Parts: sequence; C-alpha cells; structure tokens
Amino acid sequence: MHHTPNSVLVVGSVAFDDLEMPSGSFKDVLGGAATYSSLAASLLAPVRLVGVVGADFAESHISMLGAHGVDTTGLERASGKTFRWHGRYSSDLASRESLDTQLNVFADFRPKIPAAHRASEILLLGNIHPALQLEVLEQVERPKLVISDTMNFWISGEPELLGKVLAKVDLLVINDEEARQLSGEHNLLKAAREIHKRGPRRLIIKRGEHGALLFEEGSVFFVPAFPLESVLDPTGAGDTFAGGLVGYLAKTGDVSHASVRRAMFYASAAASFCVEGIGTERLVQATRGDLGVRIEAFGAMVDYGGSLALPH
Amino acid sequence: MHHTPNSVLVVGSVAFDDLEMPSGSFKDVLGGAATYSSLAASLLAPVRLVGVVGADFAESHISMLGAHGVDTTGLERASGKTFRWHGRYSSDLASRESLDTQLNVFADFRPKIPAAHRASEILLLGNIHPALQLEVLEQVERPKLVISDTMNFWISGEPELLGKVLAKVDLLVINDEEARQLSGEHNLLKAAREIHKRGPRRLIIKRGEHGALLFEEGSVFFVPAFPLESVLDPTGAGDTFAGGLVGYLAKTGDVSHASVRRAMFYASAAASFCVEGIGTERLVQATRGDLGVRIEAFGAMVDYGGSLALPH
Repeated sequence: MHHTPNSVLVVGSVAFDDLEMPSGSFKDVLGGAATYSSLAASLLAPVRLVGVVGADFAESHISMLGAHGVDTTGLERASGKTFRWHGRYSSDLASRESLDTQLNVFADFRPKIPAAHRASEILLLGNIHPALQLEVLEQVERPKLVISDTMNFWISGEPELLGKVLAKVDLLVINDEEARQLSGEHNLLKAAREIHKRGPRRLIIKRGEHGALLFEEGSVFFVPAFPLESVLDPTGAGDTFAGGLVGYLAKTGDVSHASVRRAMFYASAAASFCVEGIGTERLVQATRGDLGVRIEAFGAMVDYGGSLALPH
Repeated sequence: MHHTPNSVLVVGSVAFDDLEMPSGSFKDVLGGAATYSSLAASLLAPVRLVGVVGADFAESHISMLGAHGVDTTGLERASGKTFRWHGRYSSDLASRESLDTQLNVFADFRPKIPAAHRASEILLLGNIHPALQLEVLEQVERPKLVISDTMNFWISGEPELLGKVLAKVDLLVINDEEARQLSGEHNLLKAAREIHKRGPRRLIIKRGEHGALLFEEGSVFFVPAFPLESVLDPTGAGDTFAGGLVGYLAKTGDVSHASVRRAMFYASAAASFCVEGIGTERLVQATRGDLGVRIEAFGAMVDYGGSLALPH
C-alpha cells in the first residue's frame, strides 16, 4: 500500500554565508537555517518553505530548491539584500566566531503563511524572533506536531515571548548550551525536567559530534552522531538535523514517541551529509538512496543483538 | 543450565588518592586502576588481582575486596608506602590536575602471577609500564582474550616496548586523547585504522560522558554514557569501564564481537556507578541487582523498535 506523506512547513532564515574554514575561504555560500532544514526534510517528504530573500538572491537557488521538492511559494522576495553571515572556524572546527552579521531584508521579516500551506501537518519553527514564531502559530491550523528551535539571543533577550512560544511547542530541538541557558541547570537531566515545565513535553538536546538526546516523560533516548572520516564544515548541521527529523515524521505520518526515536537516526544521518561539504553543497547532492545506505550503516552501528540479559 | 563463568586476571595499580573535588576534599581514598577494575568485574565474575601495596594498606581493604569475590593471593605486600596520588578537579569535573604522585612501593613493582592464576581466561593489563605488561604476558598461559590499557606517559616515553605489547593485545581500551596520541591522527576513524595496524584487532575508545566506540574490521559500534543527575567523582571511571567489560566477557564466556558490543553496556553501567560516589565508595556498595536494574534502563534508552525502514 502506498502512503501519502504529510507535509512539512519550515519557517526561518535563508542566507548567504562567508565561511573561513581550515580548508579555505568560501564566499556567498547558500545557507540559512530554513535552507538546511528544508533540503534535509525534502529527502523524505514535501516541504513548504517560508522566509525572505533579497534582490541579490539568484533564481538558480530557487529552482534548485524547487527541484528538491521544496515549495517556495512562501519564500518572499524583498527589495534589499539577503541576510548575510560571516564566520571563522577554529582549526579543529570545534569553535567559531561571528565576524559579521547583516540582517538586511531579514530585519523586517514578517512571516506570511500562504493559504495553501496553513494545514501542514508538521511545523518547524526556526530560531527566529519568538514574536514571529507566535505570528506563525496564529496563522496555521493546529499541526499534528509543532517543533521549534531557539537560540541564546532570544533566551536572554526575550524570555517572556519565548515562554509563550514554549507553551505551544510539542518538541523543542536545541543544543546543550542552549538547554543549560534556558533551564539554568548544568546537568542535562535536570535541564530537561525544567524545560518540560515550560511547555514542551518533548525535548531534543543536540550535542554535535557527540550525538543527541531525546527526553520525554522521564525517559531518555540516545542517538550518536554518525562517525565520519572527513568533516569540512559544521555550519547548518543542527538545522539539517531538525530537517531530517521532521522529514521522517512527515514521511511516516507517525508522530508517536517511538517514531521520534527512529526519526533521530534520520536527523543524525542527514546532519552527517551536511558536515561533509561546505555550506549546503553535499546536502544538495545527497539522494534518498544515499540516506538509505547511511541509515542501514547506522542501524548496524547500534545493533547489539537485542538482549543484554546475563546467562544464569 | 548453570554456566561456570571464566576468570578475570587484573594486573595494575592499587593506590590511595587524595581528592580535591567541588564537593569537598577527601583523603586516603582507596583507588588505583586495578582496584576499580576488579571491583567492577567482580559484580559479574571471579576476579584475581595482581598488584602491590605497602605496609600502610589496611587489612580491612583486603577483606573488602575478598568479600566482593576478588582473590587477592597475587596482591603483594611490600615494605614501604602504598602508591599515592593527589589530584584536584575543576568545578565542572571536566578537567583535573595532578598535584602530587608518589609511586612508593609501585616504583619497584614486578608482577608475579600466582601459579593458580596463570590459566585465567580473560586478562586485563592495566596501564603499567609496558615492560611489566610484557612480563605478565610471559607468565600466563594464552588467555582467550588479552585486554590492555595504556597512557600518554608510555605512548611518548616507551614507544618500542609499547609496540611489543600492542602486537600481543586483542582489545585495546584507551581514551580519545590517548588514541590520537598513539596514532598521530585527530579523526577517530583514522586513528582506529592506524592502531589496528599496530596489533589490536579490536579497539575501544572511551570518551567519558560522551560514551565509547568499539572498532573492529571496519565496523564501528557505539554505546552512550549512562546519563546521571549527580556526578561526584570521575576518578577511576575508565578503569571501572574496563572492569565491567571484562566481567561481562568472563561471565558469558563469549568473547565474540557481538559479545563485546553487549559488554560495553555493562562497562558503561559500571562506570556510571563509579562516578556517583567519591573514589570506590559507590562501586563497593553496588550489587549485581543494581547493575541489572541499570542495564534494563540502558536497554530502554537505546531501543528504537528494531526497524529504521521507511514506509513505501
């Protein structure tokens, strides 16, 4: 029996990045959280992208997204320049500094969800201003699952508005430092308990090369990062993780706890493609077949034969 | 059918530690790699401990080990003082400095394996001088599995002797920094390939709170660290991990690749007890029942329902 996948609505930033990497410098690299998330999700399910770009955004990028099954009806084109970020990574890629951020057209962004996209089953709210996340939530019909990211800037700068968002989020996907900042707890089990109290009954804490943890109703689930021989650029890996996650949930139409556990492997596998190339280049090339191969290898990597019982 | 477990022979250091922890200062704490490994392994199988202590080593420690099923026939008592280490941890326990190390009776230690222990099926060589590791290997009958640790000091100071040890080791258990130093490769997949060339066909790389990786014949297996709300003291966690590992392998009598995968859960669970107390205090109290409860929780933590296949 063929199954019609659910749709994913992704709202967030589309950007150009200038990247100074140990492997070289790269200018005008297509980036932005919503771009990474959409490309990853599109490996598995239909995606609707809502964001804003400037007059400098090449038509070829839009057609590339279209060719990946990303509906760009909601990608607004404003006069002015596209959001730009300039960053430099340390030689081991473990840290980075922002050299310049130009919000440009993103400064006045007010997400407008096309009527045809308001009934998307899975909503992924990128780490935009919580006031805008609330505006999106007001425009959509209640999705099966609302997934949100946020960041240090909003945690410290807009705690009240962020609190209103969190009360409406089913699954919050953030990194370990954000979880610590949001909860005021260093220990991640304690941080998770505190964050659950703010609204999200599900929480994923991303730990980069150390994998990710899912917390729900006192249970913890763990997925490792897929081990790679060559990592070129971690930019967008967390957004790609979120994209793989929502792609799997939309494809299966199953948003149960067990399904989210399985989705984390797809999330982590998608992120592993992301970091293998500069910007979105490797992710753009990845096929569902590539993803299937990696998922199979991933399953083998955590297979211990099913029983940990001792002999008598 | 009842099954007679294999025996574990542990050779390494027995020590007293002075620990300056965020939670307080602790003096004359029972420690040493072989102590941690033996206590962990003894939760699962009979253990024979070979090491040396001084005249200051209380009889009560020896009887405590005996009560845990650790045969101390090979624990030599020399005139002089027991090996002492004094360390201070950072407030988040992520780093530590050695304030003082007094080898004392350990400086002249020459391991003598009692005749009754020479046919032990599983041999765990602690991170003693590689010349001593070789002396142990000469005294024993070929075990089913030789597992070894080493450390930065021998990697840089005794590369030739260490090379001879590695050629005789089945499974090397070291941490990520040691793997990088030993191989000259930062990337752990590349490091593993290089280390396999030196002898050990199996390699476990421990990453503390980030879990551990097993490498064998191109395959990678991953086990997370058991998440804890309260971590008091990481001293000995790696040695406890190795002890849990060999305990499981001895208990099952199965040293296949699949068994080593399962053993890593026991290793990680044992290490989780270790860090919950100062020194060996929590490990001393842990029962096989406690371990079983933790293993069951651990299995649930990595259970994704068995299939990562997509619907058609």
